[in-house]
Amino acid sequence: MRQHQQVLKLQTTGKSLCRVTQKIQAIVAESQIQTGLCTLFLRHTSASLLIQENADPDVLKDLENFFAKLVPEWENYIHSTEGPDDMPAHIRTALTKTSEQIPIANGRLVLGIWQGIYLWEHRQHGQTRELVIHLIGG
Amino acid sequence: MRQHQQVLKLQTTGKSLCRVTQKIQAIVAESQIQTGLCTLFLRHTSASLLIQENADPDVLKDLENFFAKLVPEWENYIHSTEGPDDMPAHIRTALTKTSEQIPIANGRLVLGIWQGIYLWEHRQHGQTRELVIHLIGG
Amino acid sequence: MRQHQQVLKLQTTGKSLCRVTQKIQAIVAESQIQTGLCTLFLRHTSASLLIQENADPDVLKDLENFFAKLVPEWENYIHSTEGPDDMPAHIRTALTKTSEQIPIANGRLVLGIWQGIYLWEHRQHGQTRELVIHLIGG
Repeated sequence: MRQHQQVLKLQTTGKSLCRVTQKIQAIVAESQIQTGLCTLFLRHTSASLLIQENADPDVLKDLENFFAKLVPEWENYIHSTEGPDDMPAHIRTALTKTSEQIPIANGRLVLGIWQGIYLWEHRQHGQTRELVIHLIGG
Repeated sequence: MRQHQQVLKLQTTGKSLCRVTQKIQAIVAESQIQTGLCTLFLRHTSASLLIQENADPDVLKDLENFFAKLVPEWENYIHSTEGPDDMPAHIRTALTKTSEQIPIANGRLVLGIWQGIYLWEHRQHGQTRELVIHLIGG
Repeated sequence: MRQHQQVLKLQTTGKSLCRVTQKIQAIVAESQIQTGLCTLFLRHTSASLLIQENADPDVLKDLENFFAKLVPEWENYIHSTEGPDDMPAHIRTALTKTSEQIPIANGRLVLGIWQGIYLWEHRQHGQTRELVIHLIGG
């Protein structure tokens, strides 16, 4: 049984879902762990993680539209000094995930055929985001 | 320290919360792991996991009603080719969980007395769903 | 590779986010695990976990206001015998987290600079809540 840990720096381009499945799968392959657990942890409070459909890009647009409507930018938020998109970004993060876990079998993540891993940027402008990958297994 | 991993196939019956606590508890017992961590991972993007009240079934009805109202079927979704219930199912999944973790103590999940583990089917029709169970401990 | 597990009892003071970062960080330090994974599991269905901004307390007020509006107390819930705040508490829990995972590096949680760990009480009155902390690593 052993562990592998590394930090992935990702540049986002404003509000959108950025697919990271291949990058994570490559790190799992390099680790040569055959059976184990992969934990993803995002070090931010205005971006989040999501496992979602990887086929039709319209699903990602509908997700973005739904969350934009559910958490509107121009509500009367008390916390507004960092811009109208900041407090909605915190709420959108609270409604999705900061960490995600995926078991590893036969050296690969056990994702379903339609599942992709996404980093969801909730701020209007692109940011550099840090994703910690922790693997444990043998 | 060792691992145990297996896939549970579950038949759902359309939009509803299906309790799987006993099935998971039995797998933990069979593994004979006394102290450890249980990870559940659902291989789908239109069904999700939830740990919720296991006593009054009305709680499950209220949860279903709340989500049906929050994510209505007849919105103008761009992704609509798979039926009016598909995009809402993706959004409901985004708002709940794809993976869940429960520590193991004394050979049992450390669930609270009112907690049950549920697979939440978000499609109108029943589906066969795959739940991966990963255990690590000793 | 080894494990450490313990239960933290926390007294809440009604609907609000209670920061527990220092308590968890102290348990990680005592365990002397340098590289590993920390899992937090809350044994309740009307309170939840959240990793959120730890700087401006107004963010916590806006989060509380948003959820109070999204899940109003006086809807026609079927489950109402435990008071008007109980069913909303279950829904708010479903929309946030029961478990959370944070990798450990150099003997510390890899939290981002703005991230704090919160126990979110969703009931009107204070409760004693049990948080299970599971550590694995070496």
